[in-house]
Amino acid sequence: MTPRFDTILITGAAGRLGTELRRGLAPLARRLRLSDITEIQDLQPNEDAVICDLADESAILALTQGVDAIVHFGGIPLERGWDAILNANIRGSYHIYEGARKAGVKRIIYASSVHAIGYHDLESQIDANAPHRPDGLYGLSKCFVEDLGRLYWDKFGIETAALRIFSSFPEPADRRMLWSYLSFDDCVRLVTAALTAPRVGFTVSFGLSDNTVKTVDNRLAAHLGYQAKDSAEPFRAGVEARTDAPDPKAPAVRHLGGWFVDLGHPDDKDKT
Amino acid sequence: MTPRFDTILITGAAGRLGTELRRGLAPLARRLRLSDITEIQDLQPNEDAVICDLADESAILALTQGVDAIVHFGGIPLERGWDAILNANIRGSYHIYEGARKAGVKRIIYASSVHAIGYHDLESQIDANAPHRPDGLYGLSKCFVEDLGRLYWDKFGIETAALRIFSSFPEPADRRMLWSYLSFDDCVRLVTAALTAPRVGFTVSFGLSDNTVKTVDNRLAAHLGYQAKDSAEPFRAGVEARTDAPDPKAPAVRHLGGWFVDLGHPDDKDKT
Amino acid sequence: MTPRFDTILITGAAGRLGTELRRGLAPLARRLRLSDITEIQDLQPNEDAVICDLADESAILALTQGVDAIVHFGGIPLERGWDAILNANIRGSYHIYEGARKAGVKRIIYASSVHAIGYHDLESQIDANAPHRPDGLYGLSKCFVEDLGRLYWDKFGIETAALRIFSSFPEPADRRMLWSYLSFDDCVRLVTAALTAPRVGFTVSFGLSDNTVKTVDNRLAAHLGYQAKDSAEPFRAGVEARTDAPDPKAPAVRHLGGWFVDLGHPDDKDKT
Amino acid sequence: MTPRFDTILITGAAGRLGTELRRGLAPLARRLRLSDITEIQDLQPNEDAVICDLADESAILALTQGVDAIVHFGGIPLERGWDAILNANIRGSYHIYEGARKAGVKRIIYASSVHAIGYHDLESQIDANAPHRPDGLYGLSKCFVEDLGRLYWDKFGIETAALRIFSSFPEPADRRMLWSYLSFDDCVRLVTAALTAPRVGFTVSFGLSDNTVKTVDNRLAAHLGYQAKDSAEPFRAGVEARTDAPDPKAPAVRHLGGWFVDLGHPDDKDKT
Amino acid sequence: MTPRFDTILITGAAGRLGTELRRGLAPLARRLRLSDITEIQDLQPNEDAVICDLADESAILALTQGVDAIVHFGGIPLERGWDAILNANIRGSYHIYEGARKAGVKRIIYASSVHAIGYHDLESQIDANAPHRPDGLYGLSKCFVEDLGRLYWDKFGIETAALRIFSSFPEPADRRMLWSYLSFDDCVRLVTAALTAPRVGFTVSFGLSDNTVKTVDNRLAAHLGYQAKDSAEPFRAGVEARTDAPDPKAPAVRHLGGWFVDLGHPDDKDKT
Amino acid sequence: MTPRFDTILITGAAGRLGTELRRGLAPLARRLRLSDITEIQDLQPNEDAVICDLADESAILALTQGVDAIVHFGGIPLERGWDAILNANIRGSYHIYEGARKAGVKRIIYASSVHAIGYHDLESQIDANAPHRPDGLYGLSKCFVEDLGRLYWDKFGIETAALRIFSSFPEPADRRMLWSYLSFDDCVRLVTAALTAPRVGFTVSFGLSDNTVKTVDNRLAAHLGYQAKDSAEPFRAGVEARTDAPDPKAPAVRHLGGWFVDLGHPDDKDKT
Repeated sequence: MTPRFDTILITGAAGRLGTELRRGLAPLARRLRLSDITEIQDLQPNEDAVICDLADESAILALTQGVDAIVHFGGIPLERGWDAILNANIRGSYHIYEGARKAGVKRIIYASSVHAIGYHDLESQIDANAPHRPDGLYGLSKCFVEDLGRLYWDKFGIETAALRIFSSFPEPADRRMLWSYLSFDDCVRLVTAALTAPRVGFTVSFGLSDNTVKTVDNRLAAHLGYQAKDSAEPFRAGVEARTDAPDPKAPAVRHLGGWFVDLGHPDDKDKT
Repeated sequence: MTPRFDTILITGAAGRLGTELRRGLAPLARRLRLSDITEIQDLQPNEDAVICDLADESAILALTQGVDAIVHFGGIPLERGWDAILNANIRGSYHIYEGARKAGVKRIIYASSVHAIGYHDLESQIDANAPHRPDGLYGLSKCFVEDLGRLYWDKFGIETAALRIFSSFPEPADRRMLWSYLSFDDCVRLVTAALTAPRVGFTVSFGLSDNTVKTVDNRLAAHLGYQAKDSAEPFRAGVEARTDAPDPKAPAVRHLGGWFVDLGHPDDKDKT
Repeated sequence: MTPRFDTILITGAAGRLGTELRRGLAPLARRLRLSDITEIQDLQPNEDAVICDLADESAILALTQGVDAIVHFGGIPLERGWDAILNANIRGSYHIYEGARKAGVKRIIYASSVHAIGYHDLESQIDANAPHRPDGLYGLSKCFVEDLGRLYWDKFGIETAALRIFSSFPEPADRRMLWSYLSFDDCVRLVTAALTAPRVGFTVSFGLSDNTVKTVDNRLAAHLGYQAKDSAEPFRAGVEARTDAPDPKAPAVRHLGGWFVDLGHPDDKDKT
Repeated sequence: MTPRFDTILITGAAGRLGTELRRGLAPLARRLRLSDITEIQDLQPNEDAVICDLADESAILALTQGVDAIVHFGGIPLERGWDAILNANIRGSYHIYEGARKAGVKRIIYASSVHAIGYHDLESQIDANAPHRPDGLYGLSKCFVEDLGRLYWDKFGIETAALRIFSSFPEPADRRMLWSYLSFDDCVRLVTAALTAPRVGFTVSFGLSDNTVKTVDNRLAAHLGYQAKDSAEPFRAGVEARTDAPDPKAPAVRHLGGWFVDLGHPDDKDKT
Repeated sequence: MTPRFDTILITGAAGRLGTELRRGLAPLARRLRLSDITEIQDLQPNEDAVICDLADESAILALTQGVDAIVHFGGIPLERGWDAILNANIRGSYHIYEGARKAGVKRIIYASSVHAIGYHDLESQIDANAPHRPDGLYGLSKCFVEDLGRLYWDKFGIETAALRIFSSFPEPADRRMLWSYLSFDDCVRLVTAALTAPRVGFTVSFGLSDNTVKTVDNRLAAHLGYQAKDSAEPFRAGVEARTDAPDPKAPAVRHLGGWFVDLGHPDDKDKT
Repeated sequence: MTPRFDTILITGAAGRLGTELRRGLAPLARRLRLSDITEIQDLQPNEDAVICDLADESAILALTQGVDAIVHFGGIPLERGWDAILNANIRGSYHIYEGARKAGVKRIIYASSVHAIGYHDLESQIDANAPHRPDGLYGLSKCFVEDLGRLYWDKFGIETAALRIFSSFPEPADRRMLWSYLSFDDCVRLVTAALTAPRVGFTVSFGLSDNTVKTVDNRLAAHLGYQAKDSAEPFRAGVEARTDAPDPKAPAVRHLGGWFVDLGHPDDKDKT
């Protein structure tokens, strides 16, 4: 069958999730255009690589030419100082959206994060309409790009699916990940669903596997058609055996953002 | 086991869904009384047929005598001119409810439609309490009968399950049906659930199979006990292969009602 | 100052509220076109009268030619048999909307009624998004026209303000009217606000004076800019002196629709 | 593997559910401390039994010493007179919470009941935030203990999972139980989930198996990680064969509390 | 004019608010029956006094004989130990409701309290449907009586207006009272409205004057017809001059319950 | 009386609203520290002026030293290109918050804007919890600073009142301002309320006078205690006389953001 897309651009293609997406999204497009700030390993025949900095406006405008869809997973993936976050995540994402607008790209899949809503409580069982409550500068930049995506949909008709990735790792590394786990395969399923859904508009979806303990309500993204097939459950006994039971009153246990809420300000030198 | 009902009346019994219901509901009743405006084929030993026009008040009053429940799937099933809709769907359904009231029938299962709420967006993920937003005269008549059912419950104690059928066909015919599909077997399951649920009162349920892409929230009808077993998923590859990807900004893609929202007024001669 | 409108059509102009609107809306338009099924008294120089039946399609199409806005207060104003309601309120209102569509009229102010939501409880404090719960055939016809207005906005771009009139009389006549009262002057204020609001789309507003006891939440119509200036309070002592205290458990006290909920079916001859 | 808890206290251990919990919770703790007002049969090596009255403050303070978690299923399990309910359920539960506070117990799993919300309708599909609507003195005591648990969380940091048990019996005994059934195994699963969830705070969960007909919305307790594996469905045909179809208008069918709403006041001697 | 009621019973009539209600409710009834556990001063010709303990069941059953409505402001009005709260507020209020049930009293106005919801935040702007969050044993007893009133309405048809009094004093004594103030005259207005509203069912209303800073949303009680006429504003400059600006992060400033949230457990001897 | 604050910092003090705030806030503080990028006219004895650029991090850190509260009205007040918005509004506001954090400032009053939610419809009657829907880069920067304020409250305990100013001008200049008008005096009242409210946490308030036509629901900010005293009503006849009636279907009439939604991208040279 002909692939659905001619060319998909994946930013952050050298990263942990980017690497998974290269493999997982290959069937969807004739070619994958990959970008990252560092070298991309093991380039495949269906792949083109562009090494560039998201903060470099003209490079990014060039990067987005001639693609059908953008899977924007690039940028800094954790709490860092303001200048780094500002350049890579805020300015960088703006360049991506401007590139999409100028190049006529119709849909962007964005790697947002649980840290955009990290100060909400587990018991609140929030849905995607809950107000932003970032838990650090990283989360703040995710909020910004969500709002940017909303604007580019409302004003310029470019669709965005903002996927709030919780914890996407090879397996759950601590007790929090027993509910925040997103397997690599489910991550690929989620991005695939967002790329192929008939109508996205501007949609926020939580990015989680089908874990037993559920802490958010994802019904508002049901039109993406994402169906998780993995779960943290097989890892549960192991994780619980090698980690202590959590203190339910600790801020990092109470809030969706986990230990991010305990981080001080990243620019406080003496704290890092 | 003795069937739950002595006699169930099915209106619209010669139609696409009526034919399926004859087969599917047979185990529930000692006899099925069938009605339609056209001839009903292949009458079975457990069936009685009455050919009559829903707009014929006295015929309908007679039709509803001596039945235990009514499965009201009769009337015009698509967009048509005002006079036709008025007579068959509005006046006709009023006759059914008056018949039920006078004959002491306790429960009516009504084939409402997605077109009663066709102007809502997919991303809104509405539930059954969302206001009516019909997408044509057909949908308007469905809204009317829902309100009629509500009145007859509140005032006369007759229960109604209004089933908003999305797209019930042998298989999904276009990309919209990948989320709007209701298989014939699931349609029978839904009507069966509505007939046998312990308590219906006035309940609105969306009529959908367990499709991957979900565009509405059916939790308010969970007491009907309907469990879909089919899905559009097996047909997906085929449909996508033979149809173009939708334009997500097209009104017919944005709204639940699909291409009905693109129809002009059915009485505009030059448009039909 | 030049009046805002050239010609406003008022249907039901010979009725209790129609008469008040003739006086109250005069400053808004160069001319008022009045229609009713009965003779209209005391025609003023700024008024033109057309005696016609709402059920007469061609008459109504002619009636709506050349007007800028329609104040549709015509039809049967209380519980009556099905045929009467069907012809005057359902078919009649359809003719008005078709007339507006064909004649290019941009805005319709419709006299809906509390009886469209008469089976809701006082304590529910519903807002305009609550589902329809008509308390009789009259209320059912009001629900129909609200949905009709919604359709003509969504599909044809004709704005409707559906004003759910509670009890508009010279003064409160019973204890229920101490909360359901809409003074004639406030009725004129409400219609005026609906005619002159910058944006109506499809809006439902409750039609009430600023009574002390409030039983519904009108915040969703705040963009109409209606400000009630009257209240039932000055009449309270008098009403309470000449009427008995209500039984709070009586259905007619519990529900917004009042004694309409106690009416049987209007076509039951032996009950009237 | 080392059990998660050293000692769990189970109150009401001689009761129908207490007996099931002894079996089901054994793997979670090194020892189970059991209490009841009557003798506890078949004591196991991992169990200690204390016979005491919940109304006996000093006995209960002693009982709660040295335990890690409390599974509070003791008290009167059905509608009874005020004095009995007051002493066992209200005063008794207060003693349990005071014992927990003084002994430093961190988490309490409480057997609340559908009868705390018995006057809500099936069609309302309430969630755990719906206001209390007890259907008798028994339910009223359940409301009290839920509020007590909320207070002890907010003020003293003791977590409570209040499990609103619907109908936990060996199998469904009547038609209502086709939707209110909680199998013994699912009951154990629910308590286990509540004991082991990473964060409970104060959480209310409905206690139900995965029945086909669903009458409440349990999404607000999704962080407990409870997954029902049983259903009333296998018992359906049998129950329906030996019981009459319900009257959907009967108060006991309309309300979640079932026949409890038909009970008069338990202290009316002449009614019992 | 004949007073609306023959006899109104006021419990807690010797208290701060009881004294105000004696004066304020006099016009509503031919006679006021007053009760308190202590002597009631300055008995008026229209008043009868009964000195009795709410915990004395038979005395309370006698007290409620022959009255048309009960204004139940008796009991312990602040945080106290469990035994005192249990006897006066829980058992005592149960006696009042049982008395009403046996004597056929139709409506009870109950002095609930902000302390039934004291752990909610100011910024949440809760309405009357928010779950209970008591801030101490006193508030817990208020929650109990609200649920008791709900039960007696649902099951026995006795109406209750539960008025959550915030701070009713001669004038605001601290900065919190600038938003929690209920003037004595407004308190009388609120009780009067609740006694004379056409329909109460079970209604919760917040008891507040028309203060500038508003911390809760009282729209769900709008059918009581209460209109505050006083405000803390005239006292603001004085209060601010003689008190320090609050620390916005202090628990007592964050929560509706104020300094009650800082109180430990009242039975901890060493803390009082 | 001693002013409530020692020193308040006003940014954007040379602007239209800054000038009004200098006058209006003078009674609240012993001194006002004023900053702007341009010269500030008519400096008063109670004022200190600092000319600096918000984008200058070290200047802003110095500026915020020693102040008790910040009224942050500086930055670009309308749609402009990305670089300008990024530097003044995004980076500039970050510097303000970092300054506040380092200097221990407890409360910030921020001039957010209707343009943070400009793509919502008038008829939606949104409240402050509605998701962001910016209508341009300017609005996008307002969303960013709101989220920044939320983060600094949740993580660092600095309170923010984000005031979404609609249209604050000497008088309404067009028909939209008949509902979007915020008089200068009401603007001062709103900022004063936000500065003196007992508890702000993170609160979003709509900034509007008490206009007749209301398009948003401000109840979630009721704890600020803001009471508008002005209205666009006195200007209505004049505005309507000199402007055309709006087209209700125009995007600029439908959306809260008005003509901002019609603006293209500010960096498209050929469009400006």
